[in-house]
Amino acid sequence: MNRHTISVLVENKFGVLARVAGLFSGRGYNIESLSVNTTEDPRCSRMTIVTTGDERIIEQIDKQVSKLVDVIKVTNLTSGRFIERELLLLKVKATSANRSQIVELVEIFEGKIVCVGGGEIGIELSGRDEKIGDFIELMKPFGILEMARTGRAAISKDPSKGK
Amino acid sequence: MNRHTISVLVENKFGVLARVAGLFSGRGYNIESLSVNTTEDPRCSRMTIVTTGDERIIEQIDKQVSKLVDVIKVTNLTSGRFIERELLLLKVKATSANRSQIVELVEIFEGKIVCVGGGEIGIELSGRDEKIGDFIELMKPFGILEMARTGRAAISKDPSKGK
Repeated sequence: MNRHTISVLVENKFGVLARVAGLFSGRGYNIESLSVNTTEDPRCSRMTIVTTGDERIIEQIDKQVSKLVDVIKVTNLTSGRFIERELLLLKVKATSANRSQIVELVEIFEGKIVCVGGGEIGIELSGRDEKIGDFIELMKPFGILEMARTGRAAISKDPSKGK
Repeated sequence: MNRHTISVLVENKFGVLARVAGLFSGRGYNIESLSVNTTEDPRCSRMTIVTTGDERIIEQIDKQVSKLVDVIKVTNLTSGRFIERELLLLKVKATSANRSQIVELVEIFEGKIVCVGGGEIGIELSGRDEKIGDFIELMKPFGILEMARTGRAAISKDPSKGK
């Protein structure tokens, strides 16, 4: 059971997310995280899906997603060199006594303070999922009030072939 | 037709994304971007959905999503003060002649260079969607080779009640 990051370029048409998510759910494939947003071409969107499974399952996902209507291209980024990042917004309890501790941790992780007030601090942090996970663990003792974590964005590190 | 950011806390159960995406698609509601990932509680995931529609449609979405199995809470963040960010990874063509121009723009936007090589530069940037959009426009003339943009992460700026 390995974790795979799959990038799916789709036509920006109605219902395409429901079809892809439905295929994963219908076949019993796990979705650990998912992001979908527009690309530089307004006709296309890109989904980045993190899933787990052995080689056979990943091959099946690749084949079956490729066959769906409005799917242009499926790339298993995990098979080459790639860069992936996600973004975290988190609100944590802060008192005058522990605020500087929190700020110090945010600086170490190269995060940003996005709001302060009413005994709360809002933090923005980007990075690989492991870094994000480590930061969340460090914030737990202060009292996490709210958090939202995007799915992954991922691009290949290998030279682009054409476009 | 206003843009709304809706935060949906769900139980981390199989098929919940397919149910939510299916409801949007079945009822004809638009999804502009979507992110789903785990929360600090491993039993829960949070989806952040950006959708467009008038007040009546947004009310309907709120009601109908709330009724779905495994949906714990639906919050329309747009009705209060909130912070939202997304993350962009982008690979652009670079020559020795224009590399410094690109690097300068990345610095202005407080982005990070994540890889350089083979006539390409990989860039990471986080911010509000408008900032991300502006940066993409500025990169287009250089030749965008690949890009992936997460959906939104969003948290309320209003004081947290309880938890």
